[in-house]
Amino acid sequence: MDAKVYECVKEVFETNTPFSRNLGIKVLLDGSLNPYIRVERQDHLIGNYIQDILHGGVISSVLDIIGAIIAVDGVISRMKYDQRADIMKKFEKLGTIDMRVDYLRPGRGVSFIATGEAMRTGNKVSVVRTKLKNDENTLIAAGTGTYMVG
Amino acid sequence: MDAKVYECVKEVFETNTPFSRNLGIKVLLDGSLNPYIRVERQDHLIGNYIQDILHGGVISSVLDIIGAIIAVDGVISRMKYDQRADIMKKFEKLGTIDMRVDYLRPGRGVSFIATGEAMRTGNKVSVVRTKLKNDENTLIAAGTGTYMVG
Amino acid sequence: MDAKVYECVKEVFETNTPFSRNLGIKVLLDGSLNPYIRVERQDHLIGNYIQDILHGGVISSVLDIIGAIIAVDGVISRMKYDQRADIMKKFEKLGTIDMRVDYLRPGRGVSFIATGEAMRTGNKVSVVRTKLKNDENTLIAAGTGTYMVG
Amino acid sequence: MDAKVYECVKEVFETNTPFSRNLGIKVLLDGSLNPYIRVERQDHLIGNYIQDILHGGVISSVLDIIGAIIAVDGVISRMKYDQRADIMKKFEKLGTIDMRVDYLRPGRGVSFIATGEAMRTGNKVSVVRTKLKNDENTLIAAGTGTYMVG
Repeated sequence: MDAKVYECVKEVFETNTPFSRNLGIKVLLDGSLNPYIRVERQDHLIGNYIQDILHGGVISSVLDIIGAIIAVDGVISRMKYDQRADIMKKFEKLGTIDMRVDYLRPGRGVSFIATGEAMRTGNKVSVVRTKLKNDENTLIAAGTGTYMVG
Repeated sequence: MDAKVYECVKEVFETNTPFSRNLGIKVLLDGSLNPYIRVERQDHLIGNYIQDILHGGVISSVLDIIGAIIAVDGVISRMKYDQRADIMKKFEKLGTIDMRVDYLRPGRGVSFIATGEAMRTGNKVSVVRTKLKNDENTLIAAGTGTYMVG
Repeated sequence: MDAKVYECVKEVFETNTPFSRNLGIKVLLDGSLNPYIRVERQDHLIGNYIQDILHGGVISSVLDIIGAIIAVDGVISRMKYDQRADIMKKFEKLGTIDMRVDYLRPGRGVSFIATGEAMRTGNKVSVVRTKLKNDENTLIAAGTGTYMVG
Repeated sequence: MDAKVYECVKEVFETNTPFSRNLGIKVLLDGSLNPYIRVERQDHLIGNYIQDILHGGVISSVLDIIGAIIAVDGVISRMKYDQRADIMKKFEKLGTIDMRVDYLRPGRGVSFIATGEAMRTGNKVSVVRTKLKNDENTLIAAGTGTYMVG
């Protein structure tokens, strides 16, 4: 993900989306400049106080968001753009068509990382596989999302 | 859903689950005593300010919760129980295995209703199909969840 | 489904598709002219000889096909067409994007009926929920498919 | 996968399953002894003569089978067994609960390889992600299956 796109992604997915602020997600780039999301364990995201685990809805939300970011980045990286407006235009066309989430292990941890990998980048539709791991590198959930991108 | 189970459902899914309080869901019973969820449009649940629509993560969260309630009710309704503790024991075994969500139309509205129908009630695994509609009866999303129930 | 479309559907999905002939499916119309598929128990479709049940792959195949038929019919019914060629053009654009299948009960029976219901008919993407029942009206499987239609 | 299990897998999934013989699948082991499936392009598996591509139902069938093999192998590899009967007992408990398939690219090729990776190996339920590639290493489809294993 290049720097211009990253700036737009942070603005749209982190700052300007009320529910993202509710979740408190941070969009970050790893050493290969691939985007990932970091979310902290917070009281209002808990699904079960006794077990102290994230709610399933938080997990599916975060996987949906990282999938969307990877989907739109795949499309943008194949087009020529100079302007911020060109990037933003692609964001406006983005939407989740459907998603599957597999809840593999209890969402226990201090913080969580969501990553993804594009399976297909189309002109209209993209497919992204995603994962959520905790701070001990335990795989908590896996997802697959289909996104409208054009 | 009988009155004792409903009382437990409200306690567990509405009151005692922090993320449910974050979403502000209400679990209600319709005229046939089938459970459904009502959630209001609130600023912190919005995914897109310009379009003023619910975030996809809110939609998947609500569909997951109504599916879980219907799954656990199916199992409880097949067993004999007198005690609140018997009901609560079933709740402890409940967990979402996986879920699919289809985002059909923008989540626009003042309030939203989530309903569901059990496709299979097993001793170990149940499957529930769910729907989210807005206050104009527009179908916003459809889901299918597989739940561990025993 | 009108008569012209039905004729094309039979030709494409029953006669001209080798794997459909392998499965031996028949596309039929019910009293409301809604399409459904009938498939017979046949030795080469069995997944388990001892239990004498359909293979899961047969079930997912039949659900995929009825979903596709309903998806394409939804799009055609919204457009004006006189010519067979207009209908056939829509068939060429048809493709399954993704599908979920829930295997609810063993696929035991003499014959099976697959039906479906469109959740959304879009210009590009349609979503259809499907069901497979046996000749005793037992629900064997449920599916949801997302189809490219334009 | 150890040699005893592989022998049972070949017997059950290749030889004794009528629909597997219909598809003509071969279960093989790679250099790390991980199982995979090979299936050849055959006329009766074609979904579209003009495009000469595999039917989607063939793709979902093959992904379901490799997922099931990996799921059952995961469970067997964690238990002690001496006898063929112990292995076979696990096979009898195996069943697909649900599956998602993403059809990423047309199923064009001379032969196809299906592989998979367990996301979770449970005592009751396992989750496996699968892929189908053609002989040019093009990713044709991706799947996720949830399997009853105990």
